[in-house]
Amino acid sequence: MTLLGSRPVTAPGWTGQPRTDLAIIDCDVHHSLAKQDDLIPYLPRVYQERVRDQGFLLPGSGYYNSPKRATRSDLADGCDATMADVKRGSDLEQMREHHLDLWNVDYAILTGGSMYSASLVPDPDHAAALCRAFNDWTLETWVGRDKRFKMTLAVTVSDPRLAIQEIDRLGDNPNVVGIMLPTGARMPYGNRLYHPIWEACERHHLAVCVHPGAEGAGMAGPPTGVGYPTYYLETRLARPQMAMAHCASMICEGVFERFPTLKLAVVEVDQFWVPGFMWHLDADWKSLREQTPWVKRLPSEYFREHIRIGSQPLEEPERPEDLINLLEAMHADETLIYCSDWPHWDWDDPATTFPRLPERLHRRIFAENAREMFGL
Amino acid sequence: MTLLGSRPVTAPGWTGQPRTDLAIIDCDVHHSLAKQDDLIPYLPRVYQERVRDQGFLLPGSGYYNSPKRATRSDLADGCDATMADVKRGSDLEQMREHHLDLWNVDYAILTGGSMYSASLVPDPDHAAALCRAFNDWTLETWVGRDKRFKMTLAVTVSDPRLAIQEIDRLGDNPNVVGIMLPTGARMPYGNRLYHPIWEACERHHLAVCVHPGAEGAGMAGPPTGVGYPTYYLETRLARPQMAMAHCASMICEGVFERFPTLKLAVVEVDQFWVPGFMWHLDADWKSLREQTPWVKRLPSEYFREHIRIGSQPLEEPERPEDLINLLEAMHADETLIYCSDWPHWDWDDPATTFPRLPERLHRRIFAENAREMFGL
Repeated sequence: MTLLGSRPVTAPGWTGQPRTDLAIIDCDVHHSLAKQDDLIPYLPRVYQERVRDQGFLLPGSGYYNSPKRATRSDLADGCDATMADVKRGSDLEQMREHHLDLWNVDYAILTGGSMYSASLVPDPDHAAALCRAFNDWTLETWVGRDKRFKMTLAVTVSDPRLAIQEIDRLGDNPNVVGIMLPTGARMPYGNRLYHPIWEACERHHLAVCVHPGAEGAGMAGPPTGVGYPTYYLETRLARPQMAMAHCASMICEGVFERFPTLKLAVVEVDQFWVPGFMWHLDADWKSLREQTPWVKRLPSEYFREHIRIGSQPLEEPERPEDLINLLEAMHADETLIYCSDWPHWDWDDPATTFPRLPERLHRRIFAENAREMFGL
Repeated sequence: MTLLGSRPVTAPGWTGQPRTDLAIIDCDVHHSLAKQDDLIPYLPRVYQERVRDQGFLLPGSGYYNSPKRATRSDLADGCDATMADVKRGSDLEQMREHHLDLWNVDYAILTGGSMYSASLVPDPDHAAALCRAFNDWTLETWVGRDKRFKMTLAVTVSDPRLAIQEIDRLGDNPNVVGIMLPTGARMPYGNRLYHPIWEACERHHLAVCVHPGAEGAGMAGPPTGVGYPTYYLETRLARPQMAMAHCASMICEGVFERFPTLKLAVVEVDQFWVPGFMWHLDADWKSLREQTPWVKRLPSEYFREHIRIGSQPLEEPERPEDLINLLEAMHADETLIYCSDWPHWDWDDPATTFPRLPERLHRRIFAENAREMFGL
């Protein structure tokens, strides 16, 4: 099989000059357990027994079918297909060959997947034990084996004290750059009940990363403000809706005033909504800011300083120039971070997804915005 | 007090030539009961007694405060301020003077307000009785007194049989041009349980109009996919989210294939999301359409043919040219309909809100798109 791309990658916007800095930070690379039993050695005995007896007891978004179980079928050989929460991405060698080496990725932010629904599990001790085990397993079997890996911590927000314990336990590891939360939530992430978690993240210089997951599952309510969609096709469109609700909540509740160095990365939620989100909130803030006096600046200023949006799935406008308009209107040189979403079926490779961009903008999107956010 | 504007209005895009066709159809003019008792004569005796004893029993979005009870304070004199569900707009003479005559509005689509939450009332008979009374009151005290008024029917979707009875009772009145539903809903409006209602609308050539209301109230779930926002500032941003969910549902469930002449008008939900909504769904449909084989065309084709979006609140982009880009990308000549939202505090007048537009586009937005949809 002929591999796509070549080495070194010559993609739109690349100069072909010798590299003097980072070229690609991929902010959404999924690594997964090949099988549930792999986590057993990392669990306390009571949970070892429970998982052996009953499985992970994690809720999935079970009411729709995603095609090919969400993954690239060309990478699926040899994976245990009977395990509902396994995704492809469990093979490190395959990830190196088909992704990191192929595209010369400098850093890959491991975003997991198996533990996204931990925050929506009713039993917070059970959820936190799974998260701890998954984090230790990630450190040992992924981060310890390739210097290009940085990781986000799986945590459960359903008991902030337990989330903070985990953040304090691993947050100073230089390979830990953030925490990972699902879009699915019982309350938008600006709610005051979460603030102690954000305080711990700021203390350890960790970004808060939000990725689609667990919407409409476990203790989460319906994934839209008007109830349950029927089909996967429409459910995917709930992602930008949830992203808007979380971002508005974080800004309006004053999270970025209370935690002035905190960064929020929201990935796999489209980008089209970002300019209008800022226009709308700026206009409304001018009329309504007496209700939220702690929001001292234009909402768009908080967004541009604190919130980063993943590039995948990149919009495919009817008129190509609308993508350029969008990148300008969303201040992509500040807000957009490259994400491949490897190895999912709708992933975006770094070489062919974007049109040719001005070099500075290209470097901001593919490396600099993420480098600054994650302190790489 | 000096009135804004002049007569005839010379607004951006107007030619100043003698009018040969409709100039302004305002698709969102709120008319209201001045006091609850005004509805009593239109109710059956059992509900007369109940309303006298207990009030309308309609849920409100009571967990936030909207400024000035949502209305223009300059119009508020003489209104009964103690009634929670009264909005300004109860005075026909005031509406004539300050709106219809002032701007030379040709047709005003009366969108009510008092009954938006009827579909979220647990008791469907009670809700339907209120809707019937409100419709009869509207016909007699508003539509019967000014030829410029057209009306939407208040209905409750919680019992489709009762909704259809009301649509059959009044749907052939030439002054009835649609039904009015709130964004707040237990299920997105494409769900099959609603289809008999859409069938009745199509039979009577009525548009389905959706306006913010009752989100998070009554039997509705939280107004976002991630729970309850805290402040009105962020709750307003739930409107485009709910609009996206309803529109995606209507398209993905094949409503416009089953009811090929049905029109959907979604107003007061912003516009920024419309282009990206179409890009996203078109791209996903290409990958996922085997799950919804009744969706035979690009989702954007259904949108452009069947869905109309209100112009209020019009976006206020950081760069003025982005508004023009937006109008082009959303195919505003097909999809955008002028709405004032009179007399609410954040209303948009027809003369100063838009920049100067090409004459054809101006006429499509201010009159033609609505004329075609409502059959005027």
